[in-house]
Amino acid sequence: MGNIRIGILGYGNLGRGVELACAANPDTELAAVFTRRDPESVKVRTAGVAVWPAADLEAHVDDVDVLVLAGGSATDLPEQTPAAARLFNVVDSFDTHANIPAHFAAVDEAARESGHVAVISVGWDPGMFSVSRLYANAIMPAGADYTFWGRGVSQGHSDAIRRIPGVVDARQYTVPVPEALAAVRAGENPELTTRQKHTRECFVVAEPGADEEAIERAIVEMPNYFADYDTTVTFISKEELDRDHAGIPHGGSVIRTGATGVNGENTHVIEFSLKLDSNPEFTGSVLVAFARAAHRLSQEGARGCKTIFDIAPAYLSAQTPEELRAHML
Amino acid sequence: MGNIRIGILGYGNLGRGVELACAANPDTELAAVFTRRDPESVKVRTAGVAVWPAADLEAHVDDVDVLVLAGGSATDLPEQTPAAARLFNVVDSFDTHANIPAHFAAVDEAARESGHVAVISVGWDPGMFSVSRLYANAIMPAGADYTFWGRGVSQGHSDAIRRIPGVVDARQYTVPVPEALAAVRAGENPELTTRQKHTRECFVVAEPGADEEAIERAIVEMPNYFADYDTTVTFISKEELDRDHAGIPHGGSVIRTGATGVNGENTHVIEFSLKLDSNPEFTGSVLVAFARAAHRLSQEGARGCKTIFDIAPAYLSAQTPEELRAHML
Repeated sequence: MGNIRIGILGYGNLGRGVELACAANPDTELAAVFTRRDPESVKVRTAGVAVWPAADLEAHVDDVDVLVLAGGSATDLPEQTPAAARLFNVVDSFDTHANIPAHFAAVDEAARESGHVAVISVGWDPGMFSVSRLYANAIMPAGADYTFWGRGVSQGHSDAIRRIPGVVDARQYTVPVPEALAAVRAGENPELTTRQKHTRECFVVAEPGADEEAIERAIVEMPNYFADYDTTVTFISKEELDRDHAGIPHGGSVIRTGATGVNGENTHVIEFSLKLDSNPEFTGSVLVAFARAAHRLSQEGARGCKTIFDIAPAYLSAQTPEELRAHML
Repeated sequence: MGNIRIGILGYGNLGRGVELACAANPDTELAAVFTRRDPESVKVRTAGVAVWPAADLEAHVDDVDVLVLAGGSATDLPEQTPAAARLFNVVDSFDTHANIPAHFAAVDEAARESGHVAVISVGWDPGMFSVSRLYANAIMPAGADYTFWGRGVSQGHSDAIRRIPGVVDARQYTVPVPEALAAVRAGENPELTTRQKHTRECFVVAEPGADEEAIERAIVEMPNYFADYDTTVTFISKEELDRDHAGIPHGGSVIRTGATGVNGENTHVIEFSLKLDSNPEFTGSVLVAFARAAHRLSQEGARGCKTIFDIAPAYLSAQTPEELRAHML
């Protein structure tokens, strides 16, 4: 049996993460990159891989087993995933939590009509964090859920700072409050406000002569993004930003505390945590594991849209069920 | 739709943990306890629940939707699970890792022939630890796995101490070495010997006048159980043992560290950890979540033996797929 041929639509940070994951797995290979840019302008790292225009997806349905959509959730995926699911088995990392039901419905209709398998909202949140919540809730029906993010770079918050007049560049880190995390891990079951859970650290490069006080005020008072948090702003040079803040780390912890016993006298703490040097490379790795699952499910005759909740874990592994039972159970 | 009717075979610590979990879930109820003891001698906590002889299982196939086997892996489950799978959908917590393939084969044959669903080796290790290993390995094919157990009570090691002449009672705690755990969490990828990963703490009640030095030597030099570990032995009174060591806590961490990037320059740490006040109550809670899954799979027409690897997570939850996507993804 040949390798699973992966196509990537969109060759940014996430697309390059998917590419690396294709090479890291024994049974996957990158077959093609599709781009909305001029294909001539896109240099793909993997030797011999074709770059085709995104508009030509339909001409290549026989060249790709699973198409991984590496675009953004705001405007790309709501259009791309349903359209692509009419042509291919697909996997995306749609992460606008509130819109998941609508996205699921649109993708499910397209995938059912065309007979493909689509897996949406794969990554770490939604994704691995979600499935950790599900397992923990199913095991401990009486309990409380906590999610802490970071320490890591929030692209959305970094972008929000960059839109402030006088800002050249910025990097925003989301940081869990250590005392809150410790109280949850100790099973104290605290009620925590937004401010008590996370702080926000901003590293900002300002234009020469810009009003730094005005920039700082615009940041810390920004509704939705910063106003509900204790936010620190540090002005640094472009050289410092490029030297000390070039990475895209992230991570966090999903914790559920629950109780059992005749009178709830026994406390249990279930925690799943991630510490990631590269958010897009990790997310790309998750996407490729689910591309394997999509391919296998499709070969078994499955169709329609699925999430991480609907896929038995064995489908994700390159090992056989016998190997898994003998060595990993 | 009525509640899922759970039967329990074996009413020890684990059976009582299953009973508590039946009451904690909105869609399950304890239907019956089966015992090898005199049923008259077994007092079940839940009001109105029948206690029947284990020999009469076959007479009650219509009274139970899923039978949870709460016996031991050494001698009970290898016989009980295949036999029960001919009569019921079943779930067990078989935990002799080396014998899982043989146990799976025997249970699978029985369940397929009789048209039932059987789920084996459910709990936390094997169980939740196993599925955490699988997810992490599928995502990070290049990496290293670590499992730390504890701080928690090992029944097997406690029993081994109790068999030493002059010992009245004992409790053994398995304890991860903090420095080893810290190095793994930091992504240092250390190679660790058995001794470097865990220590063993023993609390022993000796008979009056017993040779404590001889007992201590018998413990720390015991092959397989203690010789490969740094072991501490503390002699205490029976009162102290009953007062300070009555609980059955356990837990631990499954950690996979992996690398991505063009030259493996980005490290990722994936950790699943448990801190449990009551090992049997937690394990019982996991068994009931998988009993729900077994019932649903059976209603869909599935048959045969499955493990945690083969079951899509959504089957474990009392919530609908729509609710899960809207609120937990």
